[in-house]
Amino acid sequence: MDVIDIIIAKRESRELTDRQIDWLIPAYTAGQVAEEQMSALAMAILLNGMNRREVSRWTEAMIGTGIRMDFSGLDRPTTDKHSTGGVGDKITLPLAPLVAACGAAVPQLSGRGLGHTGGTLDKLESIPGWRAQLSEAEMFGVLRETGAVVCAAGDGLAPADRKLYALRDVTGTVESIPLIASSIMSKKIAEGTGALVLDVKVGSGAFMKDLDRARELAETMVSLGTDHGVRTVALLTDMDTPLGLTAGNAIEVRESLEVLAGGGPADVVELTLALAREMLAGAGLDGVDPAEKLANGQAMDVWRRMVRAQGGDPDAALPVAREQQVLTAAASGTLTRLDALQVGVAAWRLGAGRARKEDPVQAGAGVVMHAKPGDAVRAGQPLLTLHTDTPERFEAAQAALEGAWRIEPADPQQPSTARTRSNASLLLDRIA
Amino acid sequence: MDVIDIIIAKRESRELTDRQIDWLIPAYTAGQVAEEQMSALAMAILLNGMNRREVSRWTEAMIGTGIRMDFSGLDRPTTDKHSTGGVGDKITLPLAPLVAACGAAVPQLSGRGLGHTGGTLDKLESIPGWRAQLSEAEMFGVLRETGAVVCAAGDGLAPADRKLYALRDVTGTVESIPLIASSIMSKKIAEGTGALVLDVKVGSGAFMKDLDRARELAETMVSLGTDHGVRTVALLTDMDTPLGLTAGNAIEVRESLEVLAGGGPADVVELTLALAREMLAGAGLDGVDPAEKLANGQAMDVWRRMVRAQGGDPDAALPVAREQQVLTAAASGTLTRLDALQVGVAAWRLGAGRARKEDPVQAGAGVVMHAKPGDAVRAGQPLLTLHTDTPERFEAAQAALEGAWRIEPADPQQPSTARTRSNASLLLDRIA
Repeated sequence: MDVIDIIIAKRESRELTDRQIDWLIPAYTAGQVAEEQMSALAMAILLNGMNRREVSRWTEAMIGTGIRMDFSGLDRPTTDKHSTGGVGDKITLPLAPLVAACGAAVPQLSGRGLGHTGGTLDKLESIPGWRAQLSEAEMFGVLRETGAVVCAAGDGLAPADRKLYALRDVTGTVESIPLIASSIMSKKIAEGTGALVLDVKVGSGAFMKDLDRARELAETMVSLGTDHGVRTVALLTDMDTPLGLTAGNAIEVRESLEVLAGGGPADVVELTLALAREMLAGAGLDGVDPAEKLANGQAMDVWRRMVRAQGGDPDAALPVAREQQVLTAAASGTLTRLDALQVGVAAWRLGAGRARKEDPVQAGAGVVMHAKPGDAVRAGQPLLTLHTDTPERFEAAQAALEGAWRIEPADPQQPSTARTRSNASLLLDRIA
Repeated sequence: MDVIDIIIAKRESRELTDRQIDWLIPAYTAGQVAEEQMSALAMAILLNGMNRREVSRWTEAMIGTGIRMDFSGLDRPTTDKHSTGGVGDKITLPLAPLVAACGAAVPQLSGRGLGHTGGTLDKLESIPGWRAQLSEAEMFGVLRETGAVVCAAGDGLAPADRKLYALRDVTGTVESIPLIASSIMSKKIAEGTGALVLDVKVGSGAFMKDLDRARELAETMVSLGTDHGVRTVALLTDMDTPLGLTAGNAIEVRESLEVLAGGGPADVVELTLALAREMLAGAGLDGVDPAEKLANGQAMDVWRRMVRAQGGDPDAALPVAREQQVLTAAASGTLTRLDALQVGVAAWRLGAGRARKEDPVQAGAGVVMHAKPGDAVRAGQPLLTLHTDTPERFEAAQAALEGAWRIEPADPQQPSTARTRSNASLLLDRIA
């Protein structure tokens, strides 16, 4: 088997054979295929694509380079969620305990934030004492005890993906739907969940900027899940505007606690319930109403057990940033736009995010929003509060927010055309 | 400047800016751009192309990573030839002394063979004592003294190209016209010749299998030369059939000596004279008739001085392979095909060529042809003689020659439709 033949085949838009893929992925993982060869192939795949059979085999081969977890010993069905990443996307925090409270087990291996998108583990780590790194035995223990576990993925799952992702990151070959889909799904399938709901974000703050590409990604991932025996559904959801009223770490935990307490911003509640219903349906628990579990405090009970099981203190005060700066509305009218990407970049620059995997984040940093598109605002009213421990960062955050929102004069003759979270659903499509 | 932006720009079919190219090439040469990044970019260039401005700038940047030779101190105009490589292509051997005999200076930095295509230096090294490695001072000395020098390119010319070529070789990114053109032309322009004739081979034994791609390559190289002040012309020539009656090393030197002595196969003579006329025109020496210099022995005189100046003995016996095997015609008729690629692979397997740069070659090995397409043959007559020092190679060579020729029954009612070297020119096109 010769890697150059494989590269040339894909360069010439030919299909890769099962034998080629089965040889290539372990050979690359073992260092027998050089990084420069894999990056040339990744570029050829990005430009010439892979069909469903190829992506499926590629994913299978990636899974085969590592361990595969098995939760069949649990007394509950497993179900998980994966989000492609956005701004203010704290949904895992209320969602995992909520779905556990409804009777399913949620074994979520999660990641850290990079760039303008937040990471679930970073948010949870703002809880004093909480640990993301669990051994496999600890992970099983927490899952069995509480019904949900959110922790860092170990090195054992799809090691080919870790190596390939790091390579794609530095070679301009990230944005390939077959490669994104197989990267996400190889880890989720290896994780051993029985059902999976994908939250594919679309819009300025998402990786996928347009609906067609997002739909293609969702369809690819749903078929990969299905091909590998995981009941998989994808929701396409809006990410032109941040989710909820916070983008950061501790401030997002605080907002998640509001949701678990039965309150919280409407869009966060809406998405949490929509994803919970899909996860429960995948687990065969259609009959349970998740809204009830938020209202009656059972989801909050699971949350507290979950946090405690991973060393966190659910009653401890959450960190608060040392400095705040308020940005106000320059005019009165209706807020018609609040750009997710710009808010995400501002939160990142304030210290909530990182540029490189090994950088630390500030627990208290981020952006709190006081209005969302569709809301009426008055001149001089606070629009955003910036939070950071390092006030020299305010300037860069403000620069990132230049033109991030628009206020249109309210015209009583004409109803606002602004797309609002209260009158337009954030659910754009569903792929099953 | 960020290499990932450059990769993404080309991935998205955007033009690279001058600034991007000017930064990229030295950064890559210095190791600041990683091999895996350059290979992803090379694949994007192969698939999405570069326009004339980009290729010109790219070539300029490659030249800028090394030294540029200067022959303006010579009392003669410089002119050179480059062939894209073929089977039996010994043309440089008679051509360089011939053009020198006509009054021009030929500073030819040449290469070694790889795969089925032969290398000029390998052929010349079969001459006892002859040295390919010259210092820059020695090179100038030979050129001044004899009017022609054929030697190995030093490390100083376009080092970016050496690095990039080695990378492309292992990443399936060789077959890109902009990259091939800039690779060839960066070295030829840095070499400092005033005029250049490109012999772009087309056909089974050539790198370019079809005329359109070959023409595109020729046009790209001609404009690169022109843009950099080198008077450049390209001839597109046939490589479906080997050139001449030999493919190897010492056996090709012997054939070249026949041409220098005023004889030799018609196609070799025709191509040598065609290229000589172009080289002389480029050097402003249109008035000189090269055919005369072959006939009157002056080209041979230069050859002898040239060989001697590089340590070779022009009177020494050339090496002969220890073993021969004759392949005969199975039927009588007209030879209508003799495939260049297959003959080239056979010569390589007999020991005349190499698979890796560092492998040795056998001076005596190769294939001698006793008939060429268009010739009448009788059943039992020798068609090819295989030469090697290592008779265990005969089997592999014979396998390579499976189906390499066709003999059609002679039909006296109908003239043969076979394309013959005697009635159809090997010159397919001329690009200036």
